[in-house]
Amino acid sequence: MDVYEKSLQKHYDWAGKLEVKLRAPIQTLDDLALCYTPGVSRACTEIAKDKAKSFELTRRHNTVAVVTDGTAVLGLGDIGPEAAMPVMEGKCALFKAFADIDATPLCLNTKDTDEIVRIVAAVSKSYGGINLEDISAPRCFEIERRLKELCDIPVFHDDQHGTAIVAGAALINALRVVGKNISDVRIVINGAGSAGIAIAKFFIDLGAGDIVCVDKCGILHSGERYSNPAHDEISKLTNKSGMHGTLADAMKGADVFLGVSAPRIVSGEMVKSMADGAIVFPLANPVPEITRDEAIAAGAAVVGTGASNQPNQINNVLMFPGIFRGALDCRASDINVEMQRAAAYALSSLISDDELSANKILPDPLDKRVVKTVSAAVVKAAVKSGVARKAVE
Amino acid sequence: MDVYEKSLQKHYDWAGKLEVKLRAPIQTLDDLALCYTPGVSRACTEIAKDKAKSFELTRRHNTVAVVTDGTAVLGLGDIGPEAAMPVMEGKCALFKAFADIDATPLCLNTKDTDEIVRIVAAVSKSYGGINLEDISAPRCFEIERRLKELCDIPVFHDDQHGTAIVAGAALINALRVVGKNISDVRIVINGAGSAGIAIAKFFIDLGAGDIVCVDKCGILHSGERYSNPAHDEISKLTNKSGMHGTLADAMKGADVFLGVSAPRIVSGEMVKSMADGAIVFPLANPVPEITRDEAIAAGAAVVGTGASNQPNQINNVLMFPGIFRGALDCRASDINVEMQRAAAYALSSLISDDELSANKILPDPLDKRVVKTVSAAVVKAAVKSGVARKAVE
Repeated sequence: MDVYEKSLQKHYDWAGKLEVKLRAPIQTLDDLALCYTPGVSRACTEIAKDKAKSFELTRRHNTVAVVTDGTAVLGLGDIGPEAAMPVMEGKCALFKAFADIDATPLCLNTKDTDEIVRIVAAVSKSYGGINLEDISAPRCFEIERRLKELCDIPVFHDDQHGTAIVAGAALINALRVVGKNISDVRIVINGAGSAGIAIAKFFIDLGAGDIVCVDKCGILHSGERYSNPAHDEISKLTNKSGMHGTLADAMKGADVFLGVSAPRIVSGEMVKSMADGAIVFPLANPVPEITRDEAIAAGAAVVGTGASNQPNQINNVLMFPGIFRGALDCRASDINVEMQRAAAYALSSLISDDELSANKILPDPLDKRVVKTVSAAVVKAAVKSGVARKAVE
Repeated sequence: MDVYEKSLQKHYDWAGKLEVKLRAPIQTLDDLALCYTPGVSRACTEIAKDKAKSFELTRRHNTVAVVTDGTAVLGLGDIGPEAAMPVMEGKCALFKAFADIDATPLCLNTKDTDEIVRIVAAVSKSYGGINLEDISAPRCFEIERRLKELCDIPVFHDDQHGTAIVAGAALINALRVVGKNISDVRIVINGAGSAGIAIAKFFIDLGAGDIVCVDKCGILHSGERYSNPAHDEISKLTNKSGMHGTLADAMKGADVFLGVSAPRIVSGEMVKSMADGAIVFPLANPVPEITRDEAIAAGAAVVGTGASNQPNQINNVLMFPGIFRGALDCRASDINVEMQRAAAYALSSLISDDELSANKILPDPLDKRVVKTVSAAVVKAAVKSGVARKAVE
């Protein structure tokens, strides 16, 4: 039985991957009177007087809503709220297993941007953070932007920023391996969906000097007017030498290739055309833009993929548990770019100079140090950037 | 320290009454691949093909959302979504403790009826049932009515129907004690908010022949046009003899008084004016319309209150766990009046003729038989009335 059929069988056995566990005992009538009526009204009046107490008297301080509309689930596309649930339950399970965060799946039966914004804003008082998940581009950009304005808790689209931060940490360490500077290299990003655009922006935040974004229609450049406003924006922030052409044109002489696009669209020839010490991150999943073996055969110095059975897995699970742990710990009002940058550096710092090699640029997903190190760095950056609302010892 | 201060202290200690527990292990990379990507996609495609599988492959079959807008929380009024959370967490804790149901609190930061309806309809695909809680009247009537049309899972406003069903069971058994027939008695219900109106309607469903509803302005009668459409409706369904006047007028010669109104508004004289074998249920909480002792001194034959330290506690916890357990067990699309009636009779049946007395008309809230008996009766009624979508052994 392959992993898919085995997983299906397990899903029938589990009949749901999450359940509720009580932190308050309910055995006696006295328990009832403390946990529920009449005693509970005292906690209510305390919060009514000072809403910040909702982070002390309820579970809010440790909760994240994992919100989707089911429009861009894994590689499956728009499969709707019911079918998205196994992924959201899985994500919540990882939040608990890796960072002891109590996350709740919320799969919405609407694709209307305004309605999604209103719904998430309306439920935001029940949670300490919002993790947007598997919402299709370009709607996801507007939804996240508007929710960040409306909510006083962190709103984080993991498919964009989680991916970008882990890719950033991988890039930092791959550049250590090949002895290049981020400000000096040319980086080609193929795929201008939510992940590709977020990665490009985040690499700029990390100091990247020359990024070229490519999508199905070729290299994005500032001379063009794009119907997708996100493409318009990114075309003005990247491609400083004004390149035109195809992906193959973009890759000639480039130092870094990162793909969040489609299976098998990069050839060995294209990798061969890159500069010496080429870094190749073909992240399409489950079938990458070029296989690890082909990329290495074509001369790539460092290769990272999304596959768990290969070295250098670039996996969001290295980021979302720690970044939300940190944000919740200091009751941050936002997960800002300072915190995201700190998270990338913290993740990359876990690989010592001794350990660092072409086959070891990132920690193992199960490495217990990851959440600790990332969350501590996130707290520090939150405090420094003024979004922390609680002191952390 | 009284129960309120002790409860507040406990709420600080608990820092939230609910947490997430994993049903799927996440220890190894293999676990990750089964619980999350890539394996999970198989469960998604299975549900995408047949949405009903969401009840088998996710936790949906056992989940209830406890939804409030924080407008009518306990006796505290409109305290908002953050301050409502301790009650909703408490309710979810009772769902788990009494019926092993995984309930999630959802406190909404909006009071707009249309918006609440849209939000709950949009999240309904994530749950097996919706428990509306502490939403003020008359909005709660419209919200529930519209949601019952929009959702293919049960929508149940516990403050209305949970209260009504337990009061119905109490009435059935109190009438057994005094040897009267529900079709023959005159029942006065004081307080025409959500609970009072739901109780009046449910008592009619149980066969009550003569109900008189009273609110602050006096007896409701069909000659008047009321601004609250719920008052208009109930005035046409009740008061068959066309009474006018005050609560005291209504109570003269009545067989049953039930109050869901205000503290201390019924005097001993008013109880004395009732018929022999008077049944008195002053349910205002924590201070009832008349104390148990005063009612008995004034000649009441059976008294039930909301207090946990007195006989005959009329408490919703006797109903909502069992009625949702039954509805979830048979995957009911609704909790209809047939199921509600069956639940009331099941609850009352737990008191045998030998056990029945003026001081014993209802089981203890901690009685383990309650959920079993109620849920079995609810399943049977759901099957019979055609809303069950799953066979139960």
